[in-house]
Amino acid sequence: MNLIDPNKAAERIAAYIHRTPIFTCNTLNSMAGAELFFKAECLQKVGAFKARGAMNALLKLSEKDRKKGVITHSSGNHGQALAWAASQLGIKATVVFPKGSNKVKENAIKGYGAELVLCENNLKSRESTVEDLISEKGYVLIHPYNNYDIIEGQSSCAKELIEDEPSLDTIVCPLGGGGLLSGTLLSAQLSAKSISVYGVEPSEANDALQSIQAGYIIPSESPKTIADGLKTSLGDKNFPIIKENVKDILLVTEEQIINATQLIFERMKLVVEPSSAVGLAAVLANPSLFKNKKIGIVLTGGNVTLQDIIPLFKK
Amino acid sequence: MNLIDPNKAAERIAAYIHRTPIFTCNTLNSMAGAELFFKAECLQKVGAFKARGAMNALLKLSEKDRKKGVITHSSGNHGQALAWAASQLGIKATVVFPKGSNKVKENAIKGYGAELVLCENNLKSRESTVEDLISEKGYVLIHPYNNYDIIEGQSSCAKELIEDEPSLDTIVCPLGGGGLLSGTLLSAQLSAKSISVYGVEPSEANDALQSIQAGYIIPSESPKTIADGLKTSLGDKNFPIIKENVKDILLVTEEQIINATQLIFERMKLVVEPSSAVGLAAVLANPSLFKNKKIGIVLTGGNVTLQDIIPLFKK
Repeated sequence: MNLIDPNKAAERIAAYIHRTPIFTCNTLNSMAGAELFFKAECLQKVGAFKARGAMNALLKLSEKDRKKGVITHSSGNHGQALAWAASQLGIKATVVFPKGSNKVKENAIKGYGAELVLCENNLKSRESTVEDLISEKGYVLIHPYNNYDIIEGQSSCAKELIEDEPSLDTIVCPLGGGGLLSGTLLSAQLSAKSISVYGVEPSEANDALQSIQAGYIIPSESPKTIADGLKTSLGDKNFPIIKENVKDILLVTEEQIINATQLIFERMKLVVEPSSAVGLAAVLANPSLFKNKKIGIVLTGGNVTLQDIIPLFKK
Repeated sequence: MNLIDPNKAAERIAAYIHRTPIFTCNTLNSMAGAELFFKAECLQKVGAFKARGAMNALLKLSEKDRKKGVITHSSGNHGQALAWAASQLGIKATVVFPKGSNKVKENAIKGYGAELVLCENNLKSRESTVEDLISEKGYVLIHPYNNYDIIEGQSSCAKELIEDEPSLDTIVCPLGGGGLLSGTLLSAQLSAKSISVYGVEPSEANDALQSIQAGYIIPSESPKTIADGLKTSLGDKNFPIIKENVKDILLVTEEQIINATQLIFERMKLVVEPSSAVGLAAVLANPSLFKNKKIGIVLTGGNVTLQDIIPLFKK
């Protein structure tokens, strides 16, 4: 896969992003019967690993494409990340944003100086709005995950994790569109050690597992899960990378996700979004698989509306 | 003050505690018009700086006193910290705990293997229960803040902060009983640079400011503040250290405390208790005092009942 070079991407974006710290927690180690190393991407620029991919993709644009400006559709962290990266590099960015989505994210995108174009809250409206703007204005599309430069940027996260904890034998990674998991798999391949990489998705948004089992992409159809970052369908650039390299895809229930989110808040004192917690949820749900392993877990982001998640926590 | 040696305390406890990381946040810097360096003691052992003082006090006990066992009264982080430190060193600990206080902290204290003795929820019952147990069992009292070994232990927090950010000209420190502020003042004195140290307390629990102004200790009388770690009255060992060395004592309103807590959750992605947020609250409330300064702010702890604080945040 010479389209993707984790080493070059890490070097390219290093000056712009945080090398996020790795957290450990004795209580969670005891609960898991394993050694857990949490890569805190909730402390990344814009509060999510998406800053990596967006910055890498923009830095790889030709001078000509930079001048055209970039566009994406996102109700989530990629929209913020692209707006942030573009503001750092002086590139015009447009984010197509579904009406009625998170107001905090909408304001953050505007705060980075990006143009925000509202669309209806469905994939068709998102895509057609983007296509119309590209036809009209000539913008360059930066897809949230189905893009090799994005995958390459995300690969820098696992690269840092493996460098900082060379004894890891396992990495557990949230799986939505597949950008982070693809990048993680490619970074794990570069390691001198054999590292098993698992993808985790909500049982309520299990399109990746279905797709792997079927051998072709089965899109996600309006999944309902608290892990809103993991609702997206697999991209066709991500699918083959994942299919060929992933150790397994694990599913976690909504209750397991909420419980793991609460543990990270209360035990690790980190604010994470529920999508971030699926890795810990999977490790706790599968003790036979993970007992005594040294496990890297990516905490993917911290952009959560606290008023929505906290009432779901157990008293 | 040769009773207290921040350098020796730091060395003594280093193997047991975390050297907590320092966080920065561009958004909060912009809001404050200053450079802020947050010492994240919410990530300390037991989730609060109190681990430092408790461990230092126990390590300084004579062999004979270690065998007697230790006792304290606390509804908060010191109780957990003493239980934790005692468990690390194989010392018997007893914590007198007011009935109806935080169940999570009660369970944490028991989880560290300490004996928990319930008392009525007032200072008189706390103190008489402790005195009775000391008379009967011969335990050694480890007071939460009015104790030079505790102050010495807490001094290690500012010592690390100043070592890691030598350009600091100001430190802003929450003020309850005065243990952390006393230790901070003594560590700041050891710095080659002149560092102004401010104490911050809630307007609703302003006993320290009153005491400094009066010249004698005016006890806190059942204050009502969301910053429950700052309700305690100044200790008579802390009072002279603070009176002689503190630059000023600042007050913050309940609304300012809640607003600052929300900023730390949402912008820094850290779970902190409201008592931790008074430093940021004071800096934001006093721009003329802090503009363009390089300010160390101690985030004292992260042991908060999320269900209580989050509903107070602005939508």
